[in-house]
Amino acid sequence: MQPESWRSIPLVSRLTAAAKPLARRGFLKLSAALTGSIALGANSGSAEPAPASPPADAPWSQSLGAGVVDRPYGRPADHEAGVIRRNVPWLTATTESSISFSPLQDLHGIITPNGLFFERHHAGRPDIDPDQHRLMIHGLVERPLVLNMKDILRFPQVTRIHFIECAANGGMEWRAAQLNSLQFNHGMISCAEWSGVRLSTLLEEVGVKKQAKWAMVEGADGAHMNRSLPLDKCLDDCIVVYAQNGEALRPEQGYPLRLVVPGWEGNVNIKWLRRIKLGDKPWFSREETSKYTDPMPDGTSRGFTWLIDAKSVITFPCPEKPLDRAGLYEIRGLAWTGNGKVKRVDVSTDGGINWQTARLHEPVLSKALTKFTLPWHWDGQPALLESRVIDETGYVQPTIAQLRNSRGSNSVYHNNAIQTWQIKPDGSVFNVQLA
Amino acid sequence: MQPESWRSIPLVSRLTAAAKPLARRGFLKLSAALTGSIALGANSGSAEPAPASPPADAPWSQSLGAGVVDRPYGRPADHEAGVIRRNVPWLTATTESSISFSPLQDLHGIITPNGLFFERHHAGRPDIDPDQHRLMIHGLVERPLVLNMKDILRFPQVTRIHFIECAANGGMEWRAAQLNSLQFNHGMISCAEWSGVRLSTLLEEVGVKKQAKWAMVEGADGAHMNRSLPLDKCLDDCIVVYAQNGEALRPEQGYPLRLVVPGWEGNVNIKWLRRIKLGDKPWFSREETSKYTDPMPDGTSRGFTWLIDAKSVITFPCPEKPLDRAGLYEIRGLAWTGNGKVKRVDVSTDGGINWQTARLHEPVLSKALTKFTLPWHWDGQPALLESRVIDETGYVQPTIAQLRNSRGSNSVYHNNAIQTWQIKPDGSVFNVQLA
Repeated sequence: MQPESWRSIPLVSRLTAAAKPLARRGFLKLSAALTGSIALGANSGSAEPAPASPPADAPWSQSLGAGVVDRPYGRPADHEAGVIRRNVPWLTATTESSISFSPLQDLHGIITPNGLFFERHHAGRPDIDPDQHRLMIHGLVERPLVLNMKDILRFPQVTRIHFIECAANGGMEWRAAQLNSLQFNHGMISCAEWSGVRLSTLLEEVGVKKQAKWAMVEGADGAHMNRSLPLDKCLDDCIVVYAQNGEALRPEQGYPLRLVVPGWEGNVNIKWLRRIKLGDKPWFSREETSKYTDPMPDGTSRGFTWLIDAKSVITFPCPEKPLDRAGLYEIRGLAWTGNGKVKRVDVSTDGGINWQTARLHEPVLSKALTKFTLPWHWDGQPALLESRVIDETGYVQPTIAQLRNSRGSNSVYHNNAIQTWQIKPDGSVFNVQLA
Repeated sequence: MQPESWRSIPLVSRLTAAAKPLARRGFLKLSAALTGSIALGANSGSAEPAPASPPADAPWSQSLGAGVVDRPYGRPADHEAGVIRRNVPWLTATTESSISFSPLQDLHGIITPNGLFFERHHAGRPDIDPDQHRLMIHGLVERPLVLNMKDILRFPQVTRIHFIECAANGGMEWRAAQLNSLQFNHGMISCAEWSGVRLSTLLEEVGVKKQAKWAMVEGADGAHMNRSLPLDKCLDDCIVVYAQNGEALRPEQGYPLRLVVPGWEGNVNIKWLRRIKLGDKPWFSREETSKYTDPMPDGTSRGFTWLIDAKSVITFPCPEKPLDRAGLYEIRGLAWTGNGKVKRVDVSTDGGINWQTARLHEPVLSKALTKFTLPWHWDGQPALLESRVIDETGYVQPTIAQLRNSRGSNSVYHNNAIQTWQIKPDGSVFNVQLA
């Protein structure tokens, strides 16, 4: 197992073991200067020998802090003010029809906190009164119904951890590496614990007519954003969700009600859900004809490409989190697949010539982010870091060259290519595409 | 399985099937008045027949919402302003040495969002500069070390979902049922995904001397809150944590660094962790002598009672979430144990005479909250709801009478008794203790 590789490296500053002798002498010198003073504020990035006596008290250790009623609903530390969702102003005409990217470079684990879950709106974030909100289920059903939020809360509840990824995540990469950033290249994926009612439970309540084969799901936003979903998927694992990571959905995530379509592209996970209509064929809505289709080299377009294929990315190191100096590191990343569970993640440090199997961290859940790690002794030389996921169906994450070979270069959506991070001798990290 | 019981009840308003005929006629009349108008705002709490045409547009469906950069870090909907942590002013002398309770009545699933995780401070919430923060490890070690946050982030990372419960949760119940509230009786438990470094990894780095048997762990708050921990527990599953539910710890949860001691009482999970000293015996600190001990009937006190024994509680219905009217409901609740995994939860609706086995929801994780549900057809008569957990060691959650028989009634801590909710014919719910 991987932790052994960490332990196999001699002790006494494993953290700096690979540094050049001069640099290491410098480090020890600096450390000596720090001895006995833990509140100096010099952030050497290196383990310091311990002082002989207990640490001197910092100001916050010599006074009373704030009381428990000061923040009835908490917020992050002021020192974390840079950990925010960000948008790309030139990407869309207005911010109401735009995207905010999740700061993956600052996140750990598989849960995305609600305040940092990526957003994609088509007509902005509506402010809905939950007492006024209704969900209508009609069309090819036996007993059409209109449900209010209290009704929906009474149905049997399920809770599941699932990722949601926008189909356009990494879309700017199809032609060339454009943004030197983990946040902007991969930040349209997040993962949360969702609670709600199985869509199959609601459809059983209304009674599905035999002719029904499709469902049109529609939001209450100004765009009336809607998509067609095959009935089989609706009955399989879709959830009509009212809670995310324990609490009510946030407004930007569909408050008070949204659809979660596990493993399928973000835009079918309709937010502010107000209507489900069953029919015998798809609706061919705007978002499944003029958008969210994949132009192919022969001039045709693929449609209804809902599935999120297996994908992975190294989240440390990354452009926003470079390496300090040579030494032992832990490569960390996330993998996911709309097909079910992640089976294996391999990591290369030489641009895909040699691969090592990374450690997967429990829990490995279906259609959820899976965390992987691999210890890595960086020798200070140039390196090319890549991760490659294999899911439980045997699907292997492709290279961008393989994707281009099959789909050309006019695509925007469904780029699940292997990401390459180039490490330079100074430890900086760059987004590159290998030939 | 339980979902079948829901399905076994005839269709056509399962939601109202058990209502008295008159009430039901009243409901249908009201529904008819609502036909075709989903934006009327009358919240009948009942499924309405569908209107013939699509729902009329509410104001938020006819306008642009807010843009994606409006809230770079999100917050809950304004309509959820009542979902907050609350304290009990008379419980402690000051708010800096107090508790805020998590609103379990409004939460779903097993993850507590960071903004609602319960708090317990001994000297308030310090505001620590992470660049200045240090962790010193010394005492009976080969190579004492002072680590800064950058150092700690470089060590191999683990991510685990664990609950933390204050030993005093339910403490007010020892003598009598005092507060008619789920939030105040059980709200000192929360559960999150924690990321950090195994304490065993850090102890291996410093080298544990053979004589070492205990660790003193100390916070950087004004109280210098500290506790003694057996070395075996430190080496087993303790984590030095910097991230909670993906993002950096919140200040009130120990930013930038805390200890998580899975399955053990909250106060040993030292926040704002600044020092770990190894020794050959416990320190007998204030918080393990004058506090956090259990006075027994014979005048002695139990000490070092760290373990959280198995416990469960029904979170719906509860005093804050009464029943509307007779009909089919889903009883929902949470179970946990410091011993490992929850094995089974039984639910009684008649005060413990008859029991039914509830459904446990995946994932069932060690030392984490586990969700359970059971469909229940309430006939409108008085009822006494209880849940009882059995953990993987075979430990069975006791009644309050059993606890009093063994520990008397002078205890404050470690009340893991079965909770009884009394349901009155009007659907209201009361906290009662059975003789």
